[in-house]
Amino acid sequence: MTRVTAVQLAPRVGDLVGNVQRATTALRDALEQGADVVVLPELATSGYVFETEDEARAVAVRPDAPFFAEWARLLGSRPGAVLVTGFAELADEALYNSAAVVTADGVQAVYRKVHLWDRERVFFRPGNAAPPVLDTPHGRIGVMVCFDLEFPEWTRMTALAGADLLAVPTNWPLGPRPEGERVAEVQIAMATARMNHVAIAFADRSGRERGVDWSEGTGIVGADGWLRDSAGSGTGSASADLDLLESRDKGQTELVDLFGDRRPDLYRGLEGAGS
Amino acid sequence: MTRVTAVQLAPRVGDLVGNVQRATTALRDALEQGADVVVLPELATSGYVFETEDEARAVAVRPDAPFFAEWARLLGSRPGAVLVTGFAELADEALYNSAAVVTADGVQAVYRKVHLWDRERVFFRPGNAAPPVLDTPHGRIGVMVCFDLEFPEWTRMTALAGADLLAVPTNWPLGPRPEGERVAEVQIAMATARMNHVAIAFADRSGRERGVDWSEGTGIVGADGWLRDSAGSGTGSASADLDLLESRDKGQTELVDLFGDRRPDLYRGLEGAGS
Repeated sequence: MTRVTAVQLAPRVGDLVGNVQRATTALRDALEQGADVVVLPELATSGYVFETEDEARAVAVRPDAPFFAEWARLLGSRPGAVLVTGFAELADEALYNSAAVVTADGVQAVYRKVHLWDRERVFFRPGNAAPPVLDTPHGRIGVMVCFDLEFPEWTRMTALAGADLLAVPTNWPLGPRPEGERVAEVQIAMATARMNHVAIAFADRSGRERGVDWSEGTGIVGADGWLRDSAGSGTGSASADLDLLESRDKGQTELVDLFGDRRPDLYRGLEGAGS
Repeated sequence: MTRVTAVQLAPRVGDLVGNVQRATTALRDALEQGADVVVLPELATSGYVFETEDEARAVAVRPDAPFFAEWARLLGSRPGAVLVTGFAELADEALYNSAAVVTADGVQAVYRKVHLWDRERVFFRPGNAAPPVLDTPHGRIGVMVCFDLEFPEWTRMTALAGADLLAVPTNWPLGPRPEGERVAEVQIAMATARMNHVAIAFADRSGRERGVDWSEGTGIVGADGWLRDSAGSGTGSASADLDLLESRDKGQTELVDLFGDRRPDLYRGLEGAGS
């Protein structure tokens, strides 16, 4: 069994040092409580509601920033432990809304968010590569960021590439929903898990930032599509013990195979030159 | 506004005459209550739990079956009215799990279910064509059947082809779910609606058939992804007044465009020669 923990943090925009400290504490706590895979929110180190590109640039870092090495050291306390966290990435002259996969051996992969949401495109350049799917002692972990999860092509691709778990740092701004309904993005995660028989861990954020409230939707969904745990309101975390290898069995019944029953020979207009 | 009604029927396997009568009554009632678009379940005229192909063949019909003409006549009572219903289709030597689109002018299109579920493949041949998207006075109606809805490629294709409403005859066998949770397929419909900003009407069935119970999940979801009405348990219907043209606005915010933000240049492995 793999203990998957998604942590709901309240980063503060522009406070790199404070955010790193909060993330470090969260990581240490999660590992102490037995987490094998820890997911932190999108842009956990930088905050989200930037007003200018300069603001974003001031808190953007490269994957060789010392705090990643510190996190790798912490991860060394638990064999096979993996961290997936969002951060503002500085790369040559561009900024990316990125997620790093970190193990005891350091940063193993950086994914740059492809589907930028709303004003993110003012500050960040979109990524140009598919989500990484990393083979870990716990199974294969696919990584994407927030709005990426709402593009069924992207989640399907990553599941087809063999991901057992999608680790998804997010910042979901609070939107309207009818009384008694779940956060819409959580519903999308549940449906995505079920359609692809893949587990999903999403770390959302809390804390009002420059007038923006957040959905506080942090949770863990099993490959069967049901929510195993959620963080609720405020800072906190969601944890679930999952056998990630179960995600590989796409047989819903003896005759049904969620992947084998696809009809790629009939699928059209999904791929292309793009805009 | 378009009144969309999905009817939850309890067909009986093998009882073609009785099933047609029940469907006729349901259609008449829905039209009298102001429905503009009526959706009936998958295999509404035949029942579902066949034991042999001969059983299915005995209740399979061609689109020139007289009851379609009778339904067209009924539809003439309400200008612009459209019926989408599932039926077992006899075509040359093969049987298909099909859906017919009927207007006052007769059968306008027949869609043959592509993604057959479980033992359906014993009785039916899979379709080989994309869902039809029909231009009607109420907007563009896309048609698929049951398990098709769980293939995100298929729903995305149909939404990209311009569907404002997906009309989905279904028979969802009752599966396990945690206390308090919605039917999993309804969640998939809600997520699909939201990811594509398309309305979805799904007509499920009730009535135990040869030991199989059904989810009784009939409902209408708006393009915003929220459930507008559901039929509840037993026979009945769900109705909602929707402006189907609203589905065409894919702008979630001023800068977000659910279709324009897609990255088809990066989507890979979704289309292909197939098996």
